[in-house]
Amino acid sequence: MRMRKKKWADPYLEEHTDYALVNPAEYAGKWKELLGCTCLHVEIGMGKGDYLNNMASMYPEDGWIGIEKEHNVAAVACRKALEAENADIHNKRMIVGPAEEMLNWFAPQEIDVIHLNFSDPWPKKYTHKRRLSSTRFLQMYRTLLNTGGSIRMKTDNKNLFEDSVLYFLENGFTLKEFSVDYRRYDHPEDAVTEYESRFMELGQPIYQLCAVPEETDMVK
Amino acid sequence: MRMRKKKWADPYLEEHTDYALVNPAEYAGKWKELLGCTCLHVEIGMGKGDYLNNMASMYPEDGWIGIEKEHNVAAVACRKALEAENADIHNKRMIVGPAEEMLNWFAPQEIDVIHLNFSDPWPKKYTHKRRLSSTRFLQMYRTLLNTGGSIRMKTDNKNLFEDSVLYFLENGFTLKEFSVDYRRYDHPEDAVTEYESRFMELGQPIYQLCAVPEETDMVK
Repeated sequence: MRMRKKKWADPYLEEHTDYALVNPAEYAGKWKELLGCTCLHVEIGMGKGDYLNNMASMYPEDGWIGIEKEHNVAAVACRKALEAENADIHNKRMIVGPAEEMLNWFAPQEIDVIHLNFSDPWPKKYTHKRRLSSTRFLQMYRTLLNTGGSIRMKTDNKNLFEDSVLYFLENGFTLKEFSVDYRRYDHPEDAVTEYESRFMELGQPIYQLCAVPEETDMVK
Repeated sequence: MRMRKKKWADPYLEEHTDYALVNPAEYAGKWKELLGCTCLHVEIGMGKGDYLNNMASMYPEDGWIGIEKEHNVAAVACRKALEAENADIHNKRMIVGPAEEMLNWFAPQEIDVIHLNFSDPWPKKYTHKRRLSSTRFLQMYRTLLNTGGSIRMKTDNKNLFEDSVLYFLENGFTLKEFSVDYRRYDHPEDAVTEYESRFMELGQPIYQLCAVPEETDMVK
């Protein structure tokens, strides 16, 4: 969702390049060292960052990277992370840029879990290739995912979910978890995103899945 | 769903063994000849048979077999088929018995499409193995499905659908179609079942999928 242009966004991001990294490629292969973790999570399209912030607090031993390409949104996420009470960025960072460049930012097999939360559904057919669960992205994620790694997706969008299930299966992933109404059960282990709480209030179902590369599945 | 015992059920079925077959095994390998078709559909758990009757009318060149193990329900289905205006059974038959015996009734690769419509969800964990989409059934269907064959499933039940998607994937099927709200689009090619129309009136989503054996997919 587009946000109105914020004049303070770029200056704010430029002031906080220790958190909102501008040269993420320099950490390729070294993210776990940087964050002092053995399990690296990456949320693509982090929005204002509530999910990332909550999960990073809930799982302080894991490392959390949020990616957001919209500077206006990223600036809000950056400010929320840094200006929160008891702000603690020991195990998290942001990357401001397009996910298309992930192969430059991470080493092969460096990521353990990729999170896609309420990604843009890109409803028009000719824009489907921009979806973060489309074939070209799945092939990239496959390279970046560790053995035993997984992709966790949540959305309220029926068409995106339906198509994505087929994308995953066509691209050599299988499903380990799958729900057509995820929040009808408690999931205290998984933070609620901004969008998610809105849909929950409206009583609309959240669709959810966890996909793993098929070979990975064999290895287990 | 259980129906009250009907005294007339068994006598009625015994009178109409030309339609509600009692020795289906004698047609194993010969169903397409019997029904004069090249494409054989089998609906397991046909209930009162509205879906089978409608589809057999809509696709008169295909062959349609309905399976129902509850005699009281089967008798209603039998009567509906035989006593309908312009009753026409040239391309359809019923089998009254448990689907567990299908390997005796059909030859390997004889079936083109298996339909599972609003099957019993068997909610309790220790009864899951009775589900018509559980592993032992899927293995049986695999033997009976022709190359290029498929299983089409519709249900209103979230748990059954969620679990079934994983059953299919675990048992070497992949998904060709997949919907979390099937009837939000028109599907004039597919008849509405008795249950389905009830759920549609209530505004509840119908979950749907079409699964194919993975090797079949490769061959294409």
